[in-house]
Amino acid sequence: MAFDGGSPVNAGISRAAEASAWITSRHDEVTAFFEALDGGGRFAEDRWDRPGGGGGVTRVLADGVLFEKAGVNRSAVQGALTPVLADRLAGRPADARAVSFFVTGISIVAHPRTPMVPTVHLNVRYFELLGAAGEVVDAWVGGGTDLTPTYPLPDDAHHFHTVLRDVCGRHDPGYYRRFKQWCDDYFVNAHRGGERRGVGGVFFDYLRPADEAKPMDALLAFADSIARSLPAAYAPIAERRRALPHGERERRLQLLRRGRYVEFNLVHDRGTVFGLQTGARIESVLMSLPPQAAWEYAPISAPGSIEAALDEMLVPRDWAAPAP
Amino acid sequence: MAFDGGSPVNAGISRAAEASAWITSRHDEVTAFFEALDGGGRFAEDRWDRPGGGGGVTRVLADGVLFEKAGVNRSAVQGALTPVLADRLAGRPADARAVSFFVTGISIVAHPRTPMVPTVHLNVRYFELLGAAGEVVDAWVGGGTDLTPTYPLPDDAHHFHTVLRDVCGRHDPGYYRRFKQWCDDYFVNAHRGGERRGVGGVFFDYLRPADEAKPMDALLAFADSIARSLPAAYAPIAERRRALPHGERERRLQLLRRGRYVEFNLVHDRGTVFGLQTGARIESVLMSLPPQAAWEYAPISAPGSIEAALDEMLVPRDWAAPAP
Repeated sequence: MAFDGGSPVNAGISRAAEASAWITSRHDEVTAFFEALDGGGRFAEDRWDRPGGGGGVTRVLADGVLFEKAGVNRSAVQGALTPVLADRLAGRPADARAVSFFVTGISIVAHPRTPMVPTVHLNVRYFELLGAAGEVVDAWVGGGTDLTPTYPLPDDAHHFHTVLRDVCGRHDPGYYRRFKQWCDDYFVNAHRGGERRGVGGVFFDYLRPADEAKPMDALLAFADSIARSLPAAYAPIAERRRALPHGERERRLQLLRRGRYVEFNLVHDRGTVFGLQTGARIESVLMSLPPQAAWEYAPISAPGSIEAALDEMLVPRDWAAPAP
Repeated sequence: MAFDGGSPVNAGISRAAEASAWITSRHDEVTAFFEALDGGGRFAEDRWDRPGGGGGVTRVLADGVLFEKAGVNRSAVQGALTPVLADRLAGRPADARAVSFFVTGISIVAHPRTPMVPTVHLNVRYFELLGAAGEVVDAWVGGGTDLTPTYPLPDDAHHFHTVLRDVCGRHDPGYYRRFKQWCDDYFVNAHRGGERRGVGGVFFDYLRPADEAKPMDALLAFADSIARSLPAAYAPIAERRRALPHGERERRLQLLRRGRYVEFNLVHDRGTVFGLQTGARIESVLMSLPPQAAWEYAPISAPGSIEAALDEMLVPRDWAAPAP
């Protein structure tokens, strides 16, 4: 497999084709991972073409054993670099030579049925801007994974972050701290006084070889490690919490937290808002929304309650275990 | 009561004070109206101050007999005209003399428990821009009301629109057609291929005496008629549908339609988006969200099904009965 050792790119295959094959492979892996974790549910698959070029495969597992709704989406799309895209895609003004873009990526959101198991999100993507002759004039890597508990179990945040710290540490000693902070700064419901969507994880974007002083292979190898992190980062949490008893109170808390998840995704999430504004395939863009969510007027978290304990968990902190 | 006959403004009371008193009165009326219609539930009240000036009263009826959640909010706030506000408040560049604004209004959203009764929304507001000496340099009226069925009963859309046509017709022969169209053009989930939020109603904004060739009293009298329209436009619908039997299928359809309601309000509604961006009191801004909502991946409306019939109802048409 590519990227596993920073090996030179095969000169006969474009980086874009190689990245697409990588994403396809990881997509199949996470599909199998979530089906195995669910223990009974099966993904239904939708293949779709994008009018402007490219397409994708959306797989959704609905009404599973563990998961109320889980979606894994992959896409590889290209198109003309419109002024709107040129302004926003690259995290800075687009290279003046760029006339088109290519992006391939995978996006995962899994909403468990039980409130005792957290929701998890992951995505990775490889982006290129291309000149008039099809030459790559800019390229970068982005992605991340984050955890959204709907019941306060701090050990789960410890576990998730400790695994991510170790995954990041195998690629760069500064990555975990930097990308954990980026995640805390990104998944924020600013309109809720800065309340976080969950307990975070890692988030990164616009990682370019020149800026990072690393070859693209190394950046892709890092993204690949993130794409493969859920069996270690998430599965143990799901397994140890899936059979915990719960009742109406825990379900209410889950539905309210999912309401905040909807608010973040529709109001703040860059990818979602961008998809809504640019006519992306809407069912794939909104695949991330929870199967059910609730809103109450001004709910109160009584001191000492599970609601208050969850509020407290949403305040960013150093979740990872002390370095060994 | 003011505005009921286009009577001259009392020179001793500012228009803003008069409008605030009017809104307070209508707020109490709609509170009583929804409590009576609910038949058991009671509104809880929250009074709040706005740090920048003014405040409001939010009343929410939760877990009622007819209503799963109903909110009626009034506010009267003033503040400095920041550049962002100057760009957006007036529907055109703000008058150069304006240094502050005043707005008072009422906002209502009622989500019935039964899928057989539609959700209803209404708001009216009076806006002023003020110069350095406190003089009014611009003023306008806005508002509207619209119906969102979650079960396909075309007679309800006929009734709602016919009442609104008559209400509008008492003020101006062109209002209903103009404001019905404005409503159809406004409550659109553009990211869903132009799907409407519901079957519409009327919507209007920036009604200024000079543009409309009417005195402000006449514009306020029209807004007042809209504010008082629900006993005729909505109550008969609620009464004739509240006891209809329904089951899981109808509830599912209701929750999915409410998901679209959430999408519209968080992504497209000007007032909500503006409130989210400018730090308005968030619980009052999001009072409009349904108590529960659901999302499924790419739900299919089978030909001839209730789902397809509802989709069909969301396509704008002339709902009002032929003019008498």
